Amino acid sequence: MTVFAQRMKTMEKSASIIRGLFGAMNDPGIISFGGGAPAREALPIDIVREITNEVITRDGRGVEALQYGNVMGLPDLREIVVSELLAPKGVEADAGRIIITSGGLEGINLLCQLFIDPGDVILVESPTFVHCVEIFEMFQARCVSVAMDENGMVPEDLEAKIREYRPKMVYVIPTFQNPTGRTLSLERRKKVAELGSLYDTIILEDDPYRDIRYSGTDLPPIKAFDTTGHTVLANSFSKIFSPGSRLGYVLASEEITAKLFDAKTATNSHTSMLPQVICAEFFKRGYYPAHHRMICDLYRERRDVMIESIDKFFPKGTVRTFPDGGLFTWARLPGGINTTDLLAESLAAPDVRVAYVAGEGFFIEGNGMGNDCMRISFGGVPPEKIRIGAERLGGLICSKLDQGLSCEA
Amino acid sequence: MTVFAQRMKTMEKSASIIRGLFGAMNDPGIISFGGGAPAREALPIDIVREITNEVITRDGRGVEALQYGNVMGLPDLREIVVSELLAPKGVEADAGRIIITSGGLEGINLLCQLFIDPGDVILVESPTFVHCVEIFEMFQARCVSVAMDENGMVPEDLEAKIREYRPKMVYVIPTFQNPTGRTLSLERRKKVAELGSLYDTIILEDDPYRDIRYSGTDLPPIKAFDTTGHTVLANSFSKIFSPGSRLGYVLASEEITAKLFDAKTATNSHTSMLPQVICAEFFKRGYYPAHHRMICDLYRERRDVMIESIDKFFPKGTVRTFPDGGLFTWARLPGGINTTDLLAESLAAPDVRVAYVAGEGFFIEGNGMGNDCMRISFGGVPPEKIRIGAERLGGLICSKLDQGLSCEA
Repeated sequence: MTVFAQRMKTMEKSASIIRGLFGAMNDPGIISFGGGAPAREALPIDIVREITNEVITRDGRGVEALQYGNVMGLPDLREIVVSELLAPKGVEADAGRIIITSGGLEGINLLCQLFIDPGDVILVESPTFVHCVEIFEMFQARCVSVAMDENGMVPEDLEAKIREYRPKMVYVIPTFQNPTGRTLSLERRKKVAELGSLYDTIILEDDPYRDIRYSGTDLPPIKAFDTTGHTVLANSFSKIFSPGSRLGYVLASEEITAKLFDAKTATNSHTSMLPQVICAEFFKRGYYPAHHRMICDLYRERRDVMIESIDKFFPKGTVRTFPDGGLFTWARLPGGINTTDLLAESLAAPDVRVAYVAGEGFFIEGNGMGNDCMRISFGGVPPEKIRIGAERLGGLICSKLDQGLSCEA
Repeated sequence: MTVFAQRMKTMEKSASIIRGLFGAMNDPGIISFGGGAPAREALPIDIVREITNEVITRDGRGVEALQYGNVMGLPDLREIVVSELLAPKGVEADAGRIIITSGGLEGINLLCQLFIDPGDVILVESPTFVHCVEIFEMFQARCVSVAMDENGMVPEDLEAKIREYRPKMVYVIPTFQNPTGRTLSLERRKKVAELGSLYDTIILEDDPYRDIRYSGTDLPPIKAFDTTGHTVLANSFSKIFSPGSRLGYVLASEEITAKLFDAKTATNSHTSMLPQVICAEFFKRGYYPAHHRMICDLYRERRDVMIESIDKFFPKGTVRTFPDGGLFTWARLPGGINTTDLLAESLAAPDVRVAYVAGEGFFIEGNGMGNDCMRISFGGVPPEKIRIGAERLGGLICSKLDQGLSCEA
């Protein structure tokens, strides 16, 4: 049979991890802290129905929604990105440098089209978002990891790695990072932007969780400190509007935006129009502020219940993050428990059946790093189920430990 | 500044042609036979509003439309592809081998992800669809052209080129081809499928116009004659439902479909859900047959008016195709008139202002081939404007010819 391209081999490892994630998640008998999907309650279903009903036969928006559209995206949605999502965060932009993508991930893919030749190095956080590693590996990039601590990517290690590897790109999720929930500090944001300029390296800032902050102080994106066009901001409407709509955007320099036009044209011509029209009207008709408050309240409660439940039911010695926003926390278990094995056991045990994502898949190092860690999503699970799930999972973990490390709960 | 990847250079020529196409087309003062967009009247705007209003808050379809979805696409839309669009054409399929893409072009892009390493050869028709050449060049393929006649790609030349170049892929638009409007004959369809199997080459069948046939006899797709899985069928909902929805599908072997899952995941996770839900309901609620009849009637009239007008107003010696479907015809002008120059003149002349697509951009040969040809779209233009536009354009062409080639009109 016809041989596949080389890239299908280089992406095989991360692709198989991703395929694994699509497994047990949909079983209704399982309490899933696994997926990263927003809560069902956070989806603006009635608003979408109302908008569609009202606008599609009026104002020429029906034709706009169904006919071929602009490669760059719907003009008024791009204006909304500038005025509602970037200006309030201290990012100067104009609609001419915004391209609407089919979800935030497509922005990452398009930027790889622009910059990555086989063998180019991309620096990533350790741990990082495995889905993007799959993209990078499809482009036959070589991923190299940069150390993280509680305040995100460590700038000293970043600079050392830039000098050593001369990467084409640095991939960073600065806010409520996936998978750790950690946030890059203000000083580090400035420093990362500076390093991109200094070493002529693209800083790819992927910031989909930024707008679901429900405690702590808001921070400007890295892009706000970029003076040379080396930082490119990719974002998503998935967490604030709807993931199924597949809407995201990229803000870049004029030169990069012109190339994004070509890459987008050769990927799928333009992003689906009806979701763009509906999303633009969602903002224009003023639905966003109340919706935003509602989802932040929803996730804050779930975060609080999850943190409280982990602290109560997981064994002493568990280390977990306390995210000020986003959809997940990250925990390291004591006693060298292997979280991949534990997951299989959890799903199989009739009295447990709790899913999460095992940590090691998020580490590109592949040397067993993170095999005692887990990403625990709380965004999509109602509070009462969070309690039950954390108790069951905590019980299973405790049962693995010998007496010396026994649980309180 | 950071250097762009090699592929951004190899695609530059075709990308600049495509960018040019997005120019004058939207000027309301111009009669445009340029774009390939469906008629405004062919967009099911009221139906979409009705469906959205009815289904989104019922049957769990609201959550389905807004939440993350299946990488392969909405299950019932994939079933519809099998039962409504493939089975009636003699193509055996099952939903497990269908992936829903963001428009037909994304299917082409994904198949390049799967198969094309830099330097691989793709055989294309001469002329061919420049937008796909842009995709092939982004993947750093080497495109080699195969001769066409009135019955489509010439199998003898195809076989000779396969033996000479050992291509990874043969790209063919078998029905109402873009840009010529020509249709590959039944015998040749069988032969092309056989050649794919015989020489272990992927036959990429791109068939978006097939379902808007309004005269002549329906033909089975090349895929219907494929016994080895070497033919991959990429199709689109753009011409039968809505282009702005960006919906298409690929039918492939199990092995290829499994890889498409990975490439789609690493491109944009999945296709936008709301358009998929609406399109599935469009078929399930039985709107398609009447809509299909309506658009075929609409385009048949426009084709007839266009052909009649070309025959009346264009000079003697003009050779044009007579398409049994689709959205355009293709004409070769007498007297060595350069259609690129003519287009600039047509757009600038206050009493002409008619757009079309100059022929040479559709030929990868780049040696001036097709510089006396033009693609003339009639799909998006009302009949009365077709007459006026053809008369004006024909007049301009006649004015270019010396007395010996004078026009009748």
